[in-house]
Amino acid sequence: MSVEVTMVQTVIANWKLVVGRADKLFAGLSDTELEQEVAPGRNRLIYLLGHLTGAHDRMLALLRLGERLHPELDEPFGKLPDRAAAEIPSGETLKAAWLQVNATLLAGVEKLTPAEWIERHADVSEEDFVKEPGRNRLAVFLSRTSHLSFHVGQIILTRKK
Amino acid sequence: MSVEVTMVQTVIANWKLVVGRADKLFAGLSDTELEQEVAPGRNRLIYLLGHLTGAHDRMLALLRLGERLHPELDEPFGKLPDRAAAEIPSGETLKAAWLQVNATLLAGVEKLTPAEWIERHADVSEEDFVKEPGRNRLAVFLSRTSHLSFHVGQIILTRKK
Repeated sequence: MSVEVTMVQTVIANWKLVVGRADKLFAGLSDTELEQEVAPGRNRLIYLLGHLTGAHDRMLALLRLGERLHPELDEPFGKLPDRAAAEIPSGETLKAAWLQVNATLLAGVEKLTPAEWIERHADVSEEDFVKEPGRNRLAVFLSRTSHLSFHVGQIILTRKK
Repeated sequence: MSVEVTMVQTVIANWKLVVGRADKLFAGLSDTELEQEVAPGRNRLIYLLGHLTGAHDRMLALLRLGERLHPELDEPFGKLPDRAAAEIPSGETLKAAWLQVNATLLAGVEKLTPAEWIERHADVSEEDFVKEPGRNRLAVFLSRTSHLSFHVGQIILTRKK
């Protein structure tokens, strides 16, 4: 197997590890538990679930994999802070969207060739990308893996030691 | 530039982003602030500083980059939970070790060729690696990037909104 194919597989395996950890955490949360805050006055778990689902849904566009599934999450879980939206989807709805978005994302990235991984992401123009080749799909994917870990570290503080 | 070289550069750039964020957080903490817990009854910031420094120091061996600099951190910040060690190094000492370890680590990984990135890490035998090629240096590096993000997400909860 070529060096770059092994690299891609390793990157995806790491993503799966982190997503799998988040899957387990979210699946185990009741509606009451989803109301818990990660720290006093900070985000509720349901907000983080919506926030991460929205962020991963945006990856579909950012990685140029296809149409987004849930742009309606941007307003309540991205632009607005927790508790600012008049209404948000239920925990059940968000949990289903979380699984759906990640399954779609994984199916999309598993089809990318190594050369496609280092192509530009959607937020950089072709002209700018010539000067900044680091703004590629892989950079987005790694940065979102870190973003997910960041919030998993917070969510876990609300669970039993 | 080849696909695999761009991939390696992207991986290292992502590591630098996360480490840079942690650097800023740790540098700004007074000795009093280092005593704060990330949540009631959870790890103090000084413990996380020692824990992350020790984890990154172990990477020097795990990535087969050279001798470890601070194996003395394993006991108080790895094997033992927070507050269990009779004595721990000062915040000043740990902050200096944090910077030193990460500088050494970065200098080491920046010398690796793409082919070396997918060579086995130190905790897997040559025989096992044939069957499990995913247990490579890159896997360790990505997993430690996620580990750092996980704790940065916790540390940030103690800072002002």
